[in-house]
Amino acid sequence: MNKDFYCVIMAGGIGARFWPMSRSHSPKQFIDILDDGTSLIQKTFARFTEICPKENIYIITNQMYAEQVKQQLPDLTDEQIVLEPARRNTAPCIAYANYKIKAKNPNAVVVVAPSDHVILKEDVFKEVILNGLNFVKDNRKLLTIGIRPSCPNTGYGYIQYDEDRSYGGSSIYDVKIFTEKPELEVAKQFVESGEFLWNAGIFMWSLSEIESAFEEFLPEVNDLFKQGEGLYNTSAESSFVKATYLVCKNISIDYGIMEHAKNVCVYAADFGWSDLGTWGALYDISEKDDDKNVVMGNKVKTYNSNGCIINVPKNKAVVLQGMEDYIVVDNDNVLLICKKDNEQQIRQYVNDVQIDFGDKYI
Amino acid sequence: MNKDFYCVIMAGGIGARFWPMSRSHSPKQFIDILDDGTSLIQKTFARFTEICPKENIYIITNQMYAEQVKQQLPDLTDEQIVLEPARRNTAPCIAYANYKIKAKNPNAVVVVAPSDHVILKEDVFKEVILNGLNFVKDNRKLLTIGIRPSCPNTGYGYIQYDEDRSYGGSSIYDVKIFTEKPELEVAKQFVESGEFLWNAGIFMWSLSEIESAFEEFLPEVNDLFKQGEGLYNTSAESSFVKATYLVCKNISIDYGIMEHAKNVCVYAADFGWSDLGTWGALYDISEKDDDKNVVMGNKVKTYNSNGCIINVPKNKAVVLQGMEDYIVVDNDNVLLICKKDNEQQIRQYVNDVQIDFGDKYI
Repeated sequence: MNKDFYCVIMAGGIGARFWPMSRSHSPKQFIDILDDGTSLIQKTFARFTEICPKENIYIITNQMYAEQVKQQLPDLTDEQIVLEPARRNTAPCIAYANYKIKAKNPNAVVVVAPSDHVILKEDVFKEVILNGLNFVKDNRKLLTIGIRPSCPNTGYGYIQYDEDRSYGGSSIYDVKIFTEKPELEVAKQFVESGEFLWNAGIFMWSLSEIESAFEEFLPEVNDLFKQGEGLYNTSAESSFVKATYLVCKNISIDYGIMEHAKNVCVYAADFGWSDLGTWGALYDISEKDDDKNVVMGNKVKTYNSNGCIINVPKNKAVVLQGMEDYIVVDNDNVLLICKKDNEQQIRQYVNDVQIDFGDKYI
Repeated sequence: MNKDFYCVIMAGGIGARFWPMSRSHSPKQFIDILDDGTSLIQKTFARFTEICPKENIYIITNQMYAEQVKQQLPDLTDEQIVLEPARRNTAPCIAYANYKIKAKNPNAVVVVAPSDHVILKEDVFKEVILNGLNFVKDNRKLLTIGIRPSCPNTGYGYIQYDEDRSYGGSSIYDVKIFTEKPELEVAKQFVESGEFLWNAGIFMWSLSEIESAFEEFLPEVNDLFKQGEGLYNTSAESSFVKATYLVCKNISIDYGIMEHAKNVCVYAADFGWSDLGTWGALYDISEKDDDKNVVMGNKVKTYNSNGCIINVPKNKAVVLQGMEDYIVVDNDNVLLICKKDNEQQIRQYVNDVQIDFGDKYI
């Protein structure tokens, strides 16, 4: 195992579209959402222990989740749990982690990945990430993972790659363009063209290369975190970071760097990936019954119902009749019933519920 | 207040069609179903205290509900709580109550009524019942209450009356025929004809007259309970009744007597009656919001939903989207979601749930 290989797992999200199972005090990444005994962050951590030394894996999350991370990942030292004092999207998060790792090992080669995605083909994933890390170790590139699209999903960003410019016969290509989430018609064209991949939000680079990119495209963010050199991994880190986050802008790594940098490559891969961003995504990867319902619950009876995803307490008897393509989630003090094709509105419902009924429901 | 006027309130039903709010251990009549602070049986009892002396009101129910009756109606003596050791439908229930009252007052004139109906116009109800009791005191008739139908409801029995044979210019008529619950087409014809009334299941008669009818039409039932004369209201009553119910047939008063007796009259009345037999009946009498939803719950948000009846815990946040004409009931360890027009199937769901998941859900 290469001792220069590092992993940063981003775990600060709130998973609002998975409400009410995902709650602000216990978001999606900490939940056993696949009902197989481990949370998504536990699965993600285990996956990366196959790729880099365990002590090189960092979790970066909001400070309110510090205890949950420690509890779910007891192998981590406190230093490996990087706590953000505020939410500033992925670019500041990555800059912070970079400088913290740089203080330990300036030669680090890093994979950055979300904590709450699903990977069905673990072996392929391991191979892709190791190939990718070796690629960015030897090449001055920023590498991202692109997933071959199976449908015109409008919930993902897309990456257009240059088929004629691959590296050594591998599945790594130069990137033509990054695009934000498209309209449906555009997404259809993307998929039909065969030139576009889904942006999986998994990145690989050497510390030196990503630092150069920050200097060029996000100098104001880079300067802030660079000022902390000498403080990272010391008792002064916490107060420095608190002050830094107060003034740091909120921006994603895609929008801030990946869409602008000229040395971006994409690794076209297929390892059974899902960002599991919505109930519909969970529905898609889950086993269905004869009526195409996905039932998470032990005492559920459905009559003349199909295409539903049902997530209810194991000891609750649930009878559903005449329901087609609904999300039904009964979780503690919240019940949500809405159409699957309306799942993008769940964020709005969470807002409305918070305003009308207060924080204890979100 | 006439000291010969008695009331028998039948409270042995299990309200299966109101599951899961109505449960076998706490059926509909014991629930504050209208959410106004008193249960249906408390409302029914209060209504009859305006009509006959409080000590003349009897509750007849299954012995498993004895404690609930005592708790909800603390004014009753134990003698006024008549406990059935088994469910045998209304005819044995009425025969038992009759002989028990006869032992106290053979001149009693009795009104028999269900415990779980809704009466919106209490003053009209009082007037109708008092008129009816006076009528059967003076006439050798069996009197029932008929409600002018507002729609071709197939959940009720119908009574055809003889418009040309009324009594003293009153709204009391001779009955032509009793019919069981009709098919929809038949019900439509009934309503259009103007000659049919809904059978409200409220009966009035003198003890002597109903005993004659039992002798003629249900002699086997009458003989069983007649054998207990001398035992009612003594310490021997309980074991006698237990043995009697073991061998007594299961039959309704409508099918056993009212459909056959020649001296049956009907009082055509309108006092805002509902048998509140189903969620749809509760929907019909309840206040609707702008989207025609009936919402029982304090933290319910509906989006693009209408015609629903929603009954959920007060402290539960509920979001409903894209739901039309559904029943949504979240009660303790059960969640029911079904189409309003499918409510007659709820009995079946209760059976299925009991078989698959056990008694604690029903």
